[in-house]
Amino acid sequence: MRVLGIDPGLTRCGVGVVEGVPGRPCTLVAYHVVRTDTSDELPHRLLRLETELNALVGEYAPESVAVERVFAQHNVRTVMGTAQASAVAVLSGARRGISVETYTPSEVKAAITGSGVADKAQMITMVQRLLRLDAPPKPADAADALALAICHIWRGGTKARVAAAAAKIEAAVQKARIQQRRGSR
Amino acid sequence: MRVLGIDPGLTRCGVGVVEGVPGRPCTLVAYHVVRTDTSDELPHRLLRLETELNALVGEYAPESVAVERVFAQHNVRTVMGTAQASAVAVLSGARRGISVETYTPSEVKAAITGSGVADKAQMITMVQRLLRLDAPPKPADAADALALAICHIWRGGTKARVAAAAAKIEAAVQKARIQQRRGSR
Repeated sequence: MRVLGIDPGLTRCGVGVVEGVPGRPCTLVAYHVVRTDTSDELPHRLLRLETELNALVGEYAPESVAVERVFAQHNVRTVMGTAQASAVAVLSGARRGISVETYTPSEVKAAITGSGVADKAQMITMVQRLLRLDAPPKPADAADALALAICHIWRGGTKARVAAAAAKIEAAVQKARIQQRRGSR
Repeated sequence: MRVLGIDPGLTRCGVGVVEGVPGRPCTLVAYHVVRTDTSDELPHRLLRLETELNALVGEYAPESVAVERVFAQHNVRTVMGTAQASAVAVLSGARRGISVETYTPSEVKAAITGSGVADKAQMITMVQRLLRLDAPPKPADAADALALAICHIWRGGTKARVAAAAAKIEAAVQKARIQQRRGSR
């Protein structure tokens, strides 16, 4: 499963592409940081971001896109730009019919480090370890995007394991019913 | 000059199309409200909004798009959706190479009513009067979008008048210089 994670931002937008299956170590495919110039007008910045994200989604053809969910309680100075960038990020996947999932920062931290309140350094260390990289991803903006992609694969794994367990129970129940019917003949 | 105003919102997004020239009464072309279902997932809602706004911009082919500028101090519960909708609105024009301008609510109110703190009812009354409509635009969401379009035409008018006055002064200065040169011969 190939997932493209996007850490939305208008000035710096992290993009990380990871391959993996639930419950196994993941593999790094690529990471990028899309930048737009703070001195440019908003329409130009959004258009630049849209063009770059469209190109990356097209190039890496992920099965899913994972985007960080933005909250109003974030940094007030940058939150509007982050929210606008997140719309562009979500659409870059949705427009191609690719499933898009959003995760809160706490969900990502919990998935990667086991703690919903892990700090930036801990996140970077774990992303490096989980992807077996020789050095931490640089710039650090990319680490959050990679963490989102890993989170999506592993959370999918949790869901898949729950689904598999449910299917196993269902099969056992069916088997028991069949045996019961046979026994009652 | 035809302007398409957009009052961004994820649940209800107002769109108003107005024609006019600076300093003259404007003419209503059309207005719409694009709605997305609050029970739908974010990717679906953004995609729906993008599709509808693209269609409207394509249909009305405006020379400019005017979008309300969103601030973090707005209603915190809805501000993230509004910011995301505004990105979709800005891109609906920018993607086609149409000039996109953003205006604060105070700028729009001041342009339409003469007061930056005018209330909703006053805005609706003035939009109806300025466009010489028999009844106020319904739903009211469309009134803000029409006000944005009128504001853009009139502000362009202010800019155009300032530019015209500057050109007049420049011409007078040039004329005076030519006469001075003639006189000094």
